[in-house]
This record gives sequence, C-alpha cells and structure tokens, in this order.
Amino acid sequence: MTTLDPAVLDQLIDALPKGAVLTDPDITAGYRQDSASDPGAGTPIAVVRATCTEDVQAVMRWASQHRVPVVPRGAGSGVSGGCSAVDGGIVLSTERMREVTVDPVARVAVTQPGLLNSEVKKAAAEHGLWYPPDPSSVEISSIGGNAATNAGGLCCVKYGVTADYVLGMQVVLADGSAVRLGGPLLKDVAGLSLTKLFVGSEGTLGIITELTMRLIPAQPPASTVVASFPSVDSAADAVLAITGQIRPAMLELMDHASINAVEDGVRMGLDRNARALLLAQSDSPGSAGAHEIETIVAACETHGATEVFATDDTAEGEAFTLARRAVFPSLRAMGSVLIEDVGVPMRQLPALVTGVETIAEECNILIGTVAHAGDGNAHPLIVYDATDPGATERAHVAFNRVMNLVLSLDGTITGEHGIGRLKRDWLPRQLGEDAMELNRRIKAALDPLGILNPGAVFA
Amino acid sequence: MTTLDPAVLDQLIDALPKGAVLTDPDITAGYRQDSASDPGAGTPIAVVRATCTEDVQAVMRWASQHRVPVVPRGAGSGVSGGCSAVDGGIVLSTERMREVTVDPVARVAVTQPGLLNSEVKKAAAEHGLWYPPDPSSVEISSIGGNAATNAGGLCCVKYGVTADYVLGMQVVLADGSAVRLGGPLLKDVAGLSLTKLFVGSEGTLGIITELTMRLIPAQPPASTVVASFPSVDSAADAVLAITGQIRPAMLELMDHASINAVEDGVRMGLDRNARALLLAQSDSPGSAGAHEIETIVAACETHGATEVFATDDTAEGEAFTLARRAVFPSLRAMGSVLIEDVGVPMRQLPALVTGVETIAEECNILIGTVAHAGDGNAHPLIVYDATDPGATERAHVAFNRVMNLVLSLDGTITGEHGIGRLKRDWLPRQLGEDAMELNRRIKAALDPLGILNPGAVFA
Repeated sequence: MTTLDPAVLDQLIDALPKGAVLTDPDITAGYRQDSASDPGAGTPIAVVRATCTEDVQAVMRWASQHRVPVVPRGAGSGVSGGCSAVDGGIVLSTERMREVTVDPVARVAVTQPGLLNSEVKKAAAEHGLWYPPDPSSVEISSIGGNAATNAGGLCCVKYGVTADYVLGMQVVLADGSAVRLGGPLLKDVAGLSLTKLFVGSEGTLGIITELTMRLIPAQPPASTVVASFPSVDSAADAVLAITGQIRPAMLELMDHASINAVEDGVRMGLDRNARALLLAQSDSPGSAGAHEIETIVAACETHGATEVFATDDTAEGEAFTLARRAVFPSLRAMGSVLIEDVGVPMRQLPALVTGVETIAEECNILIGTVAHAGDGNAHPLIVYDATDPGATERAHVAFNRVMNLVLSLDGTITGEHGIGRLKRDWLPRQLGEDAMELNRRIKAALDPLGILNPGAVFA
Repeated sequence: MTTLDPAVLDQLIDALPKGAVLTDPDITAGYRQDSASDPGAGTPIAVVRATCTEDVQAVMRWASQHRVPVVPRGAGSGVSGGCSAVDGGIVLSTERMREVTVDPVARVAVTQPGLLNSEVKKAAAEHGLWYPPDPSSVEISSIGGNAATNAGGLCCVKYGVTADYVLGMQVVLADGSAVRLGGPLLKDVAGLSLTKLFVGSEGTLGIITELTMRLIPAQPPASTVVASFPSVDSAADAVLAITGQIRPAMLELMDHASINAVEDGVRMGLDRNARALLLAQSDSPGSAGAHEIETIVAACETHGATEVFATDDTAEGEAFTLARRAVFPSLRAMGSVLIEDVGVPMRQLPALVTGVETIAEECNILIGTVAHAGDGNAHPLIVYDATDPGATERAHVAFNRVMNLVLSLDGTITGEHGIGRLKRDWLPRQLGEDAMELNRRIKAALDPLGILNPGAVFA
C-alpha cells in the first residue's frame, strides 16, 4: 500500500476537482492525527478535501478498485484516535463541506458534515430554533464527526445525544454508492433503522456527506445551582435524588482535583476544600423552574452539601458553566492528559467516582474527574508529565485500571467519545464475543474489503 | 415445508418445556393473523409459547437446522401484518414472557417482551416513574412488539418514540445465539449502534427476549386545549405555529369525519360542523404550562379557530383524550376499516390532510383522518362495507392513492405501524433501490437462511 503506483494516485487526482488532493508531506502531516495524538497513527499517501457527495463517491470508487484504506475525518477534534491516518491510505477530510440550510417549518437543519457544531446551533438560532447536543468540543468539532461518534454533552441529561437528533442522512458506502436514509420526517419506520446504525459507526460503515437534524424551539433561560460536598459519595447521592424526581437541564459533577485546577486557572471562588461540586441547571420557565431549583437545592442539602448557591442570573450561571468547561484546559495546563470517557449504571456512580480516587492514590498520579453525572458518564482526566517515563507508565496503568473498574461495574468504556483506535482492544471485553461477532458481521456486510477506517473500533 | 416430517417436529417438542408447543389446528388458527387480518396469512405447523430466552434459542437452533420459517409474535395487535403466519412455519409467541423489574435508581425497567405496554407503565408508576410511549394500542400491545415496530403514540411529539427509550436488549439471532446489547447505561457508544438497529426491525433480524427501557420522572398533570377550525388547512397552520414556538405534550388533529364518528358514539359535544379539531396538551407545571396553553390558544385563534376551549381540569382533559382514542372504534362501528399510517415533513401537513379529503371524495368513500399532527404523522382510516365488492375495491384504491400522495410529498408510507406484509411492495418506492439493497445486505448478514419472519418488510 505504501508504495502505491503514482499513476494510480494520478487517477484519483484526475477524478477530483483541482486542488482537492493534497500530497505535500508537510501539509498531509497535519492530517495524521486527531486530538488523541495517537502514537500509532500512520502516514497517508494523500489527503482529499472533498467539497460534495460526488467527490466522496469518486474517492470510494477509486479506493475500492485499488483497495486503498480511507480514513474519514471531520474537524480532527476526536480524542480516541478515530481518524488516525493509516499508512498508505487516504485521509478524506470533510472540512470544506460547509453548507447548511434551516427549514423553520419542518424544524430541521440540512447540513453538510464539515460545519462545526456551534455553526449548526447558530444557523438554527437565526430561526429561533435550537440544536441541543453540546459536546465540550462544541466550538471545534464538526457536526459530521458528532454524528459519526454519536457525541454527547452537558445538556444530554434532559435533551439526549446526537443520535436523538439525526433524522436522515446521505451516506457514501465503501463501493462509492450514495444512499439517502430518512429525511425531514419526525416519525418514520419504513425499513430497517439504518440512519441510527450509521450514527456512532465512527466511519467504519460509510462516510456521511449530509445530515438532516431535528431542531426544537429555543432553550429558555436557565437557572443554576452550585453545591459543594464533603465527599463524592454524598454528591453522587444527591444526583440520584435529583434525577429520581425531575429532569434537570444540566447535572455536572466536578471532583476535588477538578475544582482546584479550575480555581488555579479562572478563580471562580469555588470551595477548594470541597471533595465534590455539583453544577445543575433548570431551564423550565416560571414556577416550574423555581420548583425544579427548589428540588435540586433540597436534594443537595439533604445529602450533606456544605454550601448551596442558586441563581437565576443567566450570566452568573453561564460563568459557572464556563468554569466546568475550563476543567480540561486547566488540567491540560498542568501536564499531558489522558482523557477517559466511561459510563456506569446510575446506581454505580458513587462507586465509579470513589474508585477513580482510589486508583489515583494507588498510582500516585493526579486524576481530575468531571462527570455528566445525571447520565452516569464520567471523564477521569489523567494528568502526567510526558517527559517522565515513570509518570507516563503510571498514567497508562491508571487509564487501564479505570476501564477495568467500569467493566466490573457493568459500565461502558466509552459513553460519548467513541472507541477509535485507543480503546479497540478493550471493546471485546465489554461486548463479549457474541456481540463482537455481530458487530463484525455488519461491518463485513457493508465494507467487505475492509477499506473504511481500518483499525478503528475493530481490532 | 408444509409437509415437515413429524419426527422433526417432535425434536422441537422434546427440546422445549411441556406444553410450550401447540399443534391443535383449532388453537393455532388463532395465531395466524394479527389485527391486520392479512388475507395472505399462512397456516403454521405449530405455535411455540416461549417462557424464556433459552426456549427461543431452542426454537431458532431447530429452525436453522431444518430451515423452518419462524414468525415472532407479541400480542398480535399489529395492523400491518407483521406477524402473519407463514405456511409450514412456526409462530413464536412471547405472550408468556411477562417478567419485569424496575430499578428506580438506575431509572430503567428490565422487561420480558410479552408484557403489555400499559403493564410496563404501571410497573414504572409504582416507583413514581414513567414509561412515556403511548401507542393507541397501549392496553393491548406488547412491549416487545412496540420495540419490534418502534411504536409511536400521542406523547411522542414531546417525548419521542419507543427507540428513544430502548437502552439495551437481549436478542436471539437466527442461528439461536443470544446476544446482549447495551444495558442500563444512559450513554454508551461502545461498538456499532446495534440496539437501535433491532428496534423497528419487525422480527426480521432477531427475536427480542428482554428489553432495558429508560424511565423518566412521572408526567405532571396536563392542561388541555380543544379548538375547532373551519378548514383542515387552518388547523394545520395552527399546528405549525404551535410547534415552532413550544413543545406541546400532545398535538392531535381530528378531521370532520372523525369528529362526527366520535360524536355518533361517545357524544362529547364536539362541534359537528368543524372541518377539523385540534387537541393539544401542555404538561409543564405552573406558569410555564400556563404560558404554553396561552401560546396554543393564541395560535389557534390567529389561524381562524371558531371555538377554543382550554381547561386545566385533568379529568376533563382525559375525557377529550378518550374522545380522540375513540375515533378508531367509532369508525370501526361503521364498517370495515383500512388503517393508514403515513407521515410527511411538517410543511406538507396541510397538503396531506386536504389531499386525503380529495381522495375520499373522488373515491366516494368515507375516510376519517386522525393525526399526531405535531409529528406530521397521520392515520387516514378508510371505512367501507366489506360485503360490497365495489366499496372494497374503492377502499383499496383509496389506500393506494394515499400512499402515492405521501410519496409525492416526500413522506413515509409508515410513521409508526411498520411495513409488515401489507406495505412491503411499496417499500422500494419510498427507499429507492440503493437503500433497499442496503436493507437487504443487513438482512442477509444476520439471517442468511431467510428464516426470520420471511415475507415481512422485504418482498
């Protein structure tokens, strides 16, 4: 593969618009890795910046004919190595596919995959509508990548994940055929649920070239509660008490290390002695929102919060949300970071968070945990000095121990980031051999040559 | 197939608990059809009433070995012939698989497929939780059938369809292997989205033997608006005005024929002269709900409603909901009914409802239309005298013309009932050849012998 006949590559260049194919190694080097900085990433023979579905079809026809691996790439913001380049392969970037139209009556956005999540939100907002999913990468991740990974975010606890908003798509298959699935229909059960199958498939089944996304009316202004706890256990208990009664619009947990990392950075006046902090929002208007805020406050107080602060000032609430979003950059400022993304059944949330604390102690390494607590989805962020081989070793041991922990709690090794290449060896342990075989059968049915994102998801 | 060696059937009987296999033709005849009364339904050689996953595995191992078709059946309430028996095949009934456990902390119900939808709701309610999907068949349809068809209902406009609540399942494949997918995890992107693939697959890919369903806090009491309109156009415009601003908990439309059929039956005091009636609910508590009700009332008045009635009396609201649910039995009392289930992009809702009116006139036949209007999903109910060949012919012409109409409006031939056998010949026209081929590839990958519900979905 690495020694592809130059004449064959010329066929690809000829089949595409001028300038679509990049082969300068200085430029293509920038497409080797995503934000996971996968050390195993290969070197592509070319990067194709597609502008339309037909370009993607041309690439896949050519790739099928010559059995060249193709790695689809959105904005490259993924953190699990889902678009690490493959030696001798093509990186197919959708960054130039940036058209979007909003139909306010149908309440849908029809968007090309290269638009950023925040740009889709903005296009919807121009019509008084809202595209809810809000991964932390909202400003830098593409909507196509969001669909390919079934991205989550902070508002999912009330509003669901990306899959809940994908009504239809155009997808280019391994053989270059382009298929339309679903459309601007709010209910549609004609044929198998293939739209949902492609969501979260991480580029292993096809390349999404257009998405029809459901929009909902604009979110009302939210009220915010911030509560400090003397233990992660007590904070997790408060989470269970809240979610058993109401559906908050946000319910995030920050542990001691995260609180202090943020305070070192942005200085919000958070309680540095707290073992855990909950950040909750209600966006129900009027008395309904007031009732939800009361419920959240009462649950926090009942479960031992040492300090509870509530505000309906949206700017103040937004400041706390920014503090939550600052956890990752604040920890990043302290060293290299291995980003975990694990989930457990709600009942196991306390066991997960305390278990991670124990792992941090035993591995003698800093782990700051933030969690979309209302969904049981946690991000233990493992901070280490990459120039110190001992620390690096301990960080990877901790990373693996966190995954062992969630598997022992009947959890998932990825709640919203995807398997990519970094976790593929772990997938069979979670799914079991029968479910893995089922995954492989679907993969083989849709990509018999194995040219779509080889090495991702499937080991 | 119809002359299966009795010794082979004995192997099946021996592999299952005593009494699980029914072969008395008088009894098995009751399992030939579902509520669609498909005239093409075959005669099974036996009915198996499974009690557990292992029973289902035994059936599928035997069926694979002897290449016997197996038709999975829930409560038999389907209206598209999804579980019509196949000559020489087995009907596999899940009616005896009726265990359910609710975990209020994890907010999930783990249920066997034979439980009725209303029984799952009841089990959740005992813990102050709610399983929202509410197909009109809520009292008679099984939760397994709901998952197999991705059933919808009245509250979907705010709360989503069955697929939005299925977190995990156990499914028995054609070869008899049992696979666990997902689980009580609110966010999980490990591997392909296979749980979602099986939802809505109508028994063509596997047999669901256990479901893990997401539950949410109990629904608050709802306020109700009933509005009469001088035309379906004006009512549909009001629908668009409402859904552009808020998310009602229910937004149903009844046309002139439906209103009068209900009045003939239950006498609610509905305006018999109205060309359309909207029934809307808000379940947001307090001032938020009051605001939503005001928005609904204002939208109806702006778009020409002749009468608008709002109430926060839940019993009164429930009475109107029952009137809406009475449309089908009321029409059924007037003759045989062909039940349509079509959907269009919201923008096309007026064109759909007026188009159906035109078809009724031109075919000289009674069509009462009720619609989950907020989702663009309509049920034109075609009433005819089955003893009159001319009327029967006109009813089927009208049925087909409605499907032609929705296809011309870029709609779907089924929004929530499924393709079954009654609409399978139409499916390629909606999906197109490429998407059909993709459906077939998945089917072939999971059921290479074609023994799972043959004739359903795929022609």
